[in-house]
Amino acid sequence: MIMICRTKQQLREALENKRKQKPGLTTGFVPTMGYLHEGHASLIRRSVAECDLTVLSIFVNPLQFGPNEDFDRYPRDEQRDLALAEASGADIAFLPTVEEMYPTKPLTSITVDVVTDRLCGASRPGHFDGVGVVVSKLFNLVQPQRAYFGMKDAQQVAVIRRMTDDLDMPIKIVPCDIVREPDGLALSSRNVYLSAEERSQALVLSQSLAKAKSIGETAGKTVQGLIDEVSNHIRESQLADIDYVELLAYPNLTPLAPNQLLLETPGELLLAVAVKFGRTRLIDNRILSFSEVTIDV
Amino acid sequence: MIMICRTKQQLREALENKRKQKPGLTTGFVPTMGYLHEGHASLIRRSVAECDLTVLSIFVNPLQFGPNEDFDRYPRDEQRDLALAEASGADIAFLPTVEEMYPTKPLTSITVDVVTDRLCGASRPGHFDGVGVVVSKLFNLVQPQRAYFGMKDAQQVAVIRRMTDDLDMPIKIVPCDIVREPDGLALSSRNVYLSAEERSQALVLSQSLAKAKSIGETAGKTVQGLIDEVSNHIRESQLADIDYVELLAYPNLTPLAPNQLLLETPGELLLAVAVKFGRTRLIDNRILSFSEVTIDV
Repeated sequence: MIMICRTKQQLREALENKRKQKPGLTTGFVPTMGYLHEGHASLIRRSVAECDLTVLSIFVNPLQFGPNEDFDRYPRDEQRDLALAEASGADIAFLPTVEEMYPTKPLTSITVDVVTDRLCGASRPGHFDGVGVVVSKLFNLVQPQRAYFGMKDAQQVAVIRRMTDDLDMPIKIVPCDIVREPDGLALSSRNVYLSAEERSQALVLSQSLAKAKSIGETAGKTVQGLIDEVSNHIRESQLADIDYVELLAYPNLTPLAPNQLLLETPGELLLAVAVKFGRTRLIDNRILSFSEVTIDV
Repeated sequence: MIMICRTKQQLREALENKRKQKPGLTTGFVPTMGYLHEGHASLIRRSVAECDLTVLSIFVNPLQFGPNEDFDRYPRDEQRDLALAEASGADIAFLPTVEEMYPTKPLTSITVDVVTDRLCGASRPGHFDGVGVVVSKLFNLVQPQRAYFGMKDAQQVAVIRRMTDDLDMPIKIVPCDIVREPDGLALSSRNVYLSAEERSQALVLSQSLAKAKSIGETAGKTVQGLIDEVSNHIRESQLADIDYVELLAYPNLTPLAPNQLLLETPGELLLAVAVKFGRTRLIDNRILSFSEVTIDV
């Protein structure tokens, strides 16, 4: 049976008991905003395979939503989430209220520069500051050795990796592959918002990302050339309203010169897209490399 | 014998060994910038009395010094420090280099609002952001249950308390009384900068703070009235160049109305001064209460 903790105190006591029973026990942590899908389940299963104890958190964090974003309508289904978490092997579920997490307005903010300059950091101001605070709080409450994050939020992974490195947090960040529907759509709790027509047109994201590798390998193709082709492909879907299509160095998310030749660009690159279909903003990405030259990061 | 760790890895291994030997061991932590004096020794002794293991760090943190401050000339004496730390009962001394603490420029910054608006937060911009980052790093490396800070840096204590509360860090912050020379001068590593004449005139700080209680108890005395009397007293010392004299609500460091009557001001108040004598900036403070009315904080 999965153990349910709704307060910080309950969570601390549950963890203390487990750790007393088995000194040296390793804890894996999967922070989520709930409305779990197979992507989350894959994180839980990986933690279960690698750690003695797996803690899942479900918390829709108001700090990381902008004033015109979907905090209030973000989908929630606690019973289904707990069933899926238990079936995937999680040992403890932490489900705090907003008041439990933030009994007073936090005065402390955490900002990670450079990695937040582009992509969602640019189009959702303050978003990653809110992520930094809530992830720090959860890390301090759970004190895991390993924490599992999906690569669909590739920038979030980069931000959290940088924060844990910079602050010497004793936690290994484990990035996990994007899980997709059979037709290619990246799993997201927000997919539930999509109408049938939007759902169908949203396939253009994974399709355009899948084509990017062969497009970029064409002789003479530049950074901007690839961005333009991907953007044009997405625009063929009438309902697609592009927020960004960007190609950045990975994992530092630094910009590339637009006229740089891809075949001469060493290392891994992140091709990331954010596109609105109706009121629903979807993101997707792919890590690519075009040059044979590798670089140490 | 005190154990000396110069790298994060050495420190992590030393702590892991101690904790394996004695599961459930409690760790007390005393972060310092070195050039230890009896004030630091009192923190170490308190930790030794309250915890199984006491870790001291000595690190002059460049992030918390402004461009025109005294980072380069800040006094250092490792051998004397280690002797004093050992005599006071510390078990482990962590003495990293700047390169060890910051192998790359940190992109992560931690800001605590409101509590940093006044006092040294106002006159040393960025100072407490640097404190927040280094204290977070040291907390994550040492993972203490208790951390000891001197009340001479009263605002630092308030900032760190707020940060640990906001981020749910599992660490109790223990504020410790200011230690003074027999003539009243608050101990500070920076006292070594003072000429004999400056040293003598600097006594005006502790003397004016000591008088504040009786001045404030005078009928009709206001917040601004007390600040003015303390300031005038300090100005009687020719070499004193006042940076600030402030009276704030404690521990939140929120401002008080200048015309507020002290006898009608509930709760504890922080009277804090920062004054330059030549090139040396000294701080001192006192917690006061004038009203019989208490408030819960």
